[in-house]
Amino acid sequence: MRYLIKFSYDGTNFNGYQKQPSCRCVESELENALYHINDHKPTKVVGAGRTDRGVHAICQSAHFDITVDISLYKLKCALNSLLPPDIHVFAVQTVDASFHARYMVKSKIYRYILNCGEYNPLERNYVYQYCRSLDVEKMKIAIQDFVGIHDFKNFASAETVKDNYVREIFNVSIEEDDNKLIFTFVGTGFLKYQVRNMVGTLVKIGNGKLGVDCIQKIFSEDSLRKHVMTIKSEGLYLVDIQY
Amino acid sequence: MRYLIKFSYDGTNFNGYQKQPSCRCVESELENALYHINDHKPTKVVGAGRTDRGVHAICQSAHFDITVDISLYKLKCALNSLLPPDIHVFAVQTVDASFHARYMVKSKIYRYILNCGEYNPLERNYVYQYCRSLDVEKMKIAIQDFVGIHDFKNFASAETVKDNYVREIFNVSIEEDDNKLIFTFVGTGFLKYQVRNMVGTLVKIGNGKLGVDCIQKIFSEDSLRKHVMTIKSEGLYLVDIQY
Repeated sequence: MRYLIKFSYDGTNFNGYQKQPSCRCVESELENALYHINDHKPTKVVGAGRTDRGVHAICQSAHFDITVDISLYKLKCALNSLLPPDIHVFAVQTVDASFHARYMVKSKIYRYILNCGEYNPLERNYVYQYCRSLDVEKMKIAIQDFVGIHDFKNFASAETVKDNYVREIFNVSIEEDDNKLIFTFVGTGFLKYQVRNMVGTLVKIGNGKLGVDCIQKIFSEDSLRKHVMTIKSEGLYLVDIQY
Repeated sequence: MRYLIKFSYDGTNFNGYQKQPSCRCVESELENALYHINDHKPTKVVGAGRTDRGVHAICQSAHFDITVDISLYKLKCALNSLLPPDIHVFAVQTVDASFHARYMVKSKIYRYILNCGEYNPLERNYVYQYCRSLDVEKMKIAIQDFVGIHDFKNFASAETVKDNYVREIFNVSIEEDDNKLIFTFVGTGFLKYQVRNMVGTLVKIGNGKLGVDCIQKIFSEDSLRKHVMTIKSEGLYLVDIQY
């Protein structure tokens, strides 16, 4: 039986979503829990995508196959009782055996939260404490340049080697909430560091280090990727996966 | 020169505000920072009051005397550069030598936040994850019984030995925000565990374990203090100190 789960996690104490040797990561916590539920059989969990170290998830998705007979309610309870307190499964459903949590993603929503006001120790792991003012109007104009189908190579991690860096962004926004800026990106998918690099570039536009038209220039001119700044991970949230 | 500082802290990794041997606490962090600023002289910090292990502060206050000549701006910067990331001083002012951060408190505001909805791993250290529904209307009636001048002995920690347990509560409220309940108490001062015990008792009223009239009974009948429940510390915030 194939199951789709939706879960949230606090990325602060994880070395990212993806399994890595001798690191605390979300994927291994899920697989450890399922090993116990699925009659001590190793159980592969296929996530909708990776998140980096320190990045949070409000709604991440994954699928897995288990052979034990268990109700959805009991599976949810069993998972949450075996998972650590910084991961929580909030929805469990059965899906067709052809369902695939990564290949069938239609869109993903990411959010980045940045504080332009006084440093807040209570939010230091959940909101990037930039603590300076930014020209939000300029950033709101510039962010629109990310919308559409683009080759995002110059906004991806320099280490990323892919056949294809083309992605589509459907929707972007910057909302202001007191001294906080909330950036939202909806797209087909995002390359490693892409959201953090897009926000970092917007911050450099907002503080005057880059011009409001620089995004189009960076898309078309590889030598300009050096201007792209990777902003810290703690303000980044995977908000939803849409199938 | 006497200074009054206002500061916030994330109580998660502190063993409370007050200095204790071989424990991480807020008071010692402040005194360590001031030792360096004040020419390596031991500098006593007098806080407006204590908070327990795990309790947060949005605005705590303290006074201290230092002999070095330093501007308010530089003192704030020096403190924040020497303090750990979970404490932040957001205001510094000079005060009269007769000012006392504890004796001159007119009122304190405490807030408790409780989640009745799905467990949220991202807020586990900042909002108590109760995750069941409560009869809020009953709690809103009952909480009014805390308003006024009362002997709060039966709502204080059983270990607390004081000459006087009489305190005045000026104002109380319960606000609903999605699935969260936000309890606010404004009063002259609060005994150890008093806010957690008042909220714990309200939760037992909301879940039907205690009657809506039990608060008056507990005030007047010592044998009933066994019904008082101390709720977890992670949802509790010292919100403000008024002089």
